[in-house]
Amino acid sequence: MLIIKTIAKVRKEINKAKSAKKIIGFVPTMGALHRGHISLVKKAKRECDFVAVSIFVNPAQFGPNEDYRKYPRTLQSDKAMLAKEKVDLLFYPSVQEMYPEGFSTFVEENFLSKVMCGRSRPGHFKGVCTVVAKLFNIITPAIAYFGHKDYQQAKILEKMVKDLNFALKITILPTIREKDGLAMSSRNAYLNSEQRKNATCLYSALMLAKLLIEKGERSPEKIINEMKKIIKLTPQVRLDYVIIANAQTLRELKAIEGKALIALAIFIGNTRLIDNLVIDVKK
Amino acid sequence: MLIIKTIAKVRKEINKAKSAKKIIGFVPTMGALHRGHISLVKKAKRECDFVAVSIFVNPAQFGPNEDYRKYPRTLQSDKAMLAKEKVDLLFYPSVQEMYPEGFSTFVEENFLSKVMCGRSRPGHFKGVCTVVAKLFNIITPAIAYFGHKDYQQAKILEKMVKDLNFALKITILPTIREKDGLAMSSRNAYLNSEQRKNATCLYSALMLAKLLIEKGERSPEKIINEMKKIIKLTPQVRLDYVIIANAQTLRELKAIEGKALIALAIFIGNTRLIDNLVIDVKK
Repeated sequence: MLIIKTIAKVRKEINKAKSAKKIIGFVPTMGALHRGHISLVKKAKRECDFVAVSIFVNPAQFGPNEDYRKYPRTLQSDKAMLAKEKVDLLFYPSVQEMYPEGFSTFVEENFLSKVMCGRSRPGHFKGVCTVVAKLFNIITPAIAYFGHKDYQQAKILEKMVKDLNFALKITILPTIREKDGLAMSSRNAYLNSEQRKNATCLYSALMLAKLLIEKGERSPEKIINEMKKIIKLTPQVRLDYVIIANAQTLRELKAIEGKALIALAIFIGNTRLIDNLVIDVKK
Repeated sequence: MLIIKTIAKVRKEINKAKSAKKIIGFVPTMGALHRGHISLVKKAKRECDFVAVSIFVNPAQFGPNEDYRKYPRTLQSDKAMLAKEKVDLLFYPSVQEMYPEGFSTFVEENFLSKVMCGRSRPGHFKGVCTVVAKLFNIITPAIAYFGHKDYQQAKILEKMVKDLNFALKITILPTIREKDGLAMSSRNAYLNSEQRKNATCLYSALMLAKLLIEKGERSPEKIINEMKKIIKLTPQVRLDYVIIANAQTLRELKAIEGKALIALAIFIGNTRLIDNLVIDVKK
């Protein structure tokens, strides 16, 4: 596995791979890799001839009071995991390499970004779009892989790819969960054992919503109220938002119909966790 | 010359050219072509194996009270001029093709864009960056050509290319002028014969500035005052701005030194015209 820190050297390797007619797959990450990331890597390895993974904790997508500094950094174990999957190239740039002094160009999606996490974390998706646009231009993949856990992020990046005409496809792969349903997330590492137990309320709330819909409930308001009860009953947990929305437009549904996104974000202590489910409700 | 209106078909032709290892040159335009544009095309033909030109009057870069609707559209003569230069591909998309319903992703440079024309035309450079980012992703040129007349635009696009890591080079070519010094511009077509005569005040003001600097004047304030006098003496002309700035940062100079940009914008009737000069003042 090539481990490369500079954009210029990545370009050289990518050009080599392209000259050899290799299909390039790309998995952008912030490191602290878990089985969710690895499922993306495995899929990329199956579909592509040359798989690049980036590890970059992107300061532009963290708010001033967020966890940029303490975000888990586990480079040695990340490297081992990626090498085991026979990843071809690990791009591991410095902040200086990605945002040299005087950096002043940003990419912003301004429809899908305005709701859900975009409302709770102003500027977050602008940071995401900017860094991913940069990475797409550096890696020039044919396919880029994202997890369903960050559903809004994936839809925004799909929109960016479409609007700005990046010549690549975005593939969204299922959320990988712990045995008790908690979605894999690098931020789970912040949780102490009691918080970890309480964190299952995310999945419980989603499962309850699913059950209610399967039983015929079509009122988002009623379902959301039931979900809120679960969250309220869980100690140490504060709800950030819960939404039932059109899975394409991310706009709140008045009645559940078609592909419905059920998504929520909570705080446990200072740790913010998100989860979601898309349910296809036939008419 | 291939004349193509859809992004999908352009991609096909570009991929063919790339498979044949051709170096792609690109000249983005809004049409109403003049000798300025053609000088870019000629340079591209000399330097590249496959030259693409786009003609697209980009609504996103016009303000609500600007001349989007009446901007000159001269497709037949444009085509003839480009065919004569043996351009390989003319991309001539519709607004719908470039901005389908629900378009929501924008690229914005926010340092160089904040002064000069960016101050007079809010949103203008965001529109420029967005459409050029799209065109770069569609055409994927090795070199893109821009005119010095739109100096601020060219510097902003250079910055965008650097910041977002587009794998291409921007080449800026000299302003092409009429015999009396007026910079070639599609908007010159708006001028009646009297306005056309008065428009030479742009070049006169720049020549005066150059002369003063050559004579040793180093105070931007004094030079700007002399330039303003010329503009004021010209009937029907209203000054938008005049600036003497660092040619890289576009920030106003307190004393003239190094590469100095002298730039101005005026209105003649409803027509807004710009011009500039970069002078290298050795210490």
